[in-house]
Amino acid sequence: MGGDFGPSVTVPAALRALQAHDDLSLILVGDEPQINALLSGASATLQQRLEILHTSVCVEDDCKPESVLRKSKESSMFLSVNLVKEARADACVSAGNTGALLLAGRHLLKTIPGISKPAIIANIPLYEDQRQAYILDVGANVTSPASQLHEFAIMGSILAATVDSIANPRVALLNVGHEEHKGTTQIREAAKLLEQTSSINFVGYIEGNEIFSNKADVVVCDGFAGNVTIKTSAGVVKVLERLLKAQADKGLFSWLMTLAAAPMLRRLRKQIDPVQFNGASVLGLQGIIVKSHGHAQVQAFYYAIEQAFKEVTDCVPQLISARMNELNMNQGN
Amino acid sequence: MGGDFGPSVTVPAALRALQAHDDLSLILVGDEPQINALLSGASATLQQRLEILHTSVCVEDDCKPESVLRKSKESSMFLSVNLVKEARADACVSAGNTGALLLAGRHLLKTIPGISKPAIIANIPLYEDQRQAYILDVGANVTSPASQLHEFAIMGSILAATVDSIANPRVALLNVGHEEHKGTTQIREAAKLLEQTSSINFVGYIEGNEIFSNKADVVVCDGFAGNVTIKTSAGVVKVLERLLKAQADKGLFSWLMTLAAAPMLRRLRKQIDPVQFNGASVLGLQGIIVKSHGHAQVQAFYYAIEQAFKEVTDCVPQLISARMNELNMNQGN
Repeated sequence: MGGDFGPSVTVPAALRALQAHDDLSLILVGDEPQINALLSGASATLQQRLEILHTSVCVEDDCKPESVLRKSKESSMFLSVNLVKEARADACVSAGNTGALLLAGRHLLKTIPGISKPAIIANIPLYEDQRQAYILDVGANVTSPASQLHEFAIMGSILAATVDSIANPRVALLNVGHEEHKGTTQIREAAKLLEQTSSINFVGYIEGNEIFSNKADVVVCDGFAGNVTIKTSAGVVKVLERLLKAQADKGLFSWLMTLAAAPMLRRLRKQIDPVQFNGASVLGLQGIIVKSHGHAQVQAFYYAIEQAFKEVTDCVPQLISARMNELNMNQGN
Repeated sequence: MGGDFGPSVTVPAALRALQAHDDLSLILVGDEPQINALLSGASATLQQRLEILHTSVCVEDDCKPESVLRKSKESSMFLSVNLVKEARADACVSAGNTGALLLAGRHLLKTIPGISKPAIIANIPLYEDQRQAYILDVGANVTSPASQLHEFAIMGSILAATVDSIANPRVALLNVGHEEHKGTTQIREAAKLLEQTSSINFVGYIEGNEIFSNKADVVVCDGFAGNVTIKTSAGVVKVLERLLKAQADKGLFSWLMTLAAAPMLRRLRKQIDPVQFNGASVLGLQGIIVKSHGHAQVQAFYYAIEQAFKEVTDCVPQLISARMNELNMNQGN
């Protein structure tokens, strides 16, 4: 029910995901009449792998996060996360209120032992290399002590190694310079912790202008810096797209330019399209939650389901849990 | 002597600035033989408004900032700032080590009463409106309490109102959302302070994706967030420029595209060129210091001199000082 478009986006995206994966089953949690209306065209084969869990209550986007707990056991968001808790679902995908989703996640699923708080991880397109890197946290925590930045590094590293099959992922700390004395106390302390962690390939500090240049597979920062980073990037891309279109529309050789620029813009848009990079995982919980942008369209929400599917296949929470255990045992020795 | 290119950039930029302004005189502080070699082609009329203050000592880019004070009274940077202190110059422009420049500035010029620490202010191009906004701090302070964010807002507001002649500049706080409960304690407290300051047109929170969209004339944040924001933006622009060039080089209609895309790219580059936006003022000192990018070329360093020239003409430090006095008196009443 979440996001700007509700079932009109999530239901078609669900059908697309079912079509892509024979071994996927989905439970749609929300208003049954609305959902059913959107399922009328779907084939019986697909519908066999679909189940509806009806509720007419939902958490609004502008609610304070706490409202999800007050409306507990009734809202579609709470019910969805609860399905994961009760092992009736392997993952939950939502385009709803981020704060509420995090709160429901922490309340119902609990964090993995050794992880103090969950983090939201987002993708960074490495434009020239047709791959992606990760950045976390991008908004679950506005400030983070060194120990938490260290946890983010561990979790991001595991996600890159499993979901993206990157051997020995390079982990960097976002900072305002490369020199040792740069940055906040938290960042400098986190650097020390990371240097001491043999299971992490820590490559040092990274600056904002370098994150798209394939210098790191995982960029670690607090949720404030991460949120500003991804939103600023999206803002610049949007402005440049509009500028390009405007430029293509005028000029001396306008007919030539329109003819020539159209395929160029189309390809460029495909390469920079944030839609391709939707699906921010909430890491650190004893269960899988993927957060879609609120403004996601069908294809983007489909990618968020894909992300959840991959994390289930790769057993991401179990891997994080095992790594935290290992680190804990090493410290005990 | 500072920056990646030293006098080979700063001297030609100085000559360009002298040519642009009949009422400008410049003192070049650095290695006299090197400077003289670069002045040989300059007209006698220009040279009349040029003076050289010789020193062979300079602060290296990779030095710890403190080295400027240890090498004090000898380095070109220290001498330049000292010229402002001794009122022999109205402003200092440098492409050297930022930390050292800040330290020399605070040590020699002192902050304006009521301003706890200086801030570095950078320009944000508002692409579609052919104007600029300001963002501060972008790196002088990695963390800032609410009172300091409040000071940044006052200083940025004065700069926008004077140098850019914007009536009643809109001031926004960079945050991870628009809702009142979003962000760090410092930001939420700064919002309250700003709401109580009648001389500031506070328009609320702004997100990273909105800063280029002409929603604010002054964006206020701590130096960490500001630094990440401007560097990330520069990084995205650079990647997109390269992507565009690569796209223009291939494709079915490659000859058509090259023909058509060339002027488009040229115009686009001009619009997004960070060179046009060089010259970050250090605000809050009892004197004017403008910091150029270390990698600035002649045109970019010329813009930094222009920025200093405007601030002298507009008496920016005096205006900040007067406003701080007013606020202080109002609080006293």
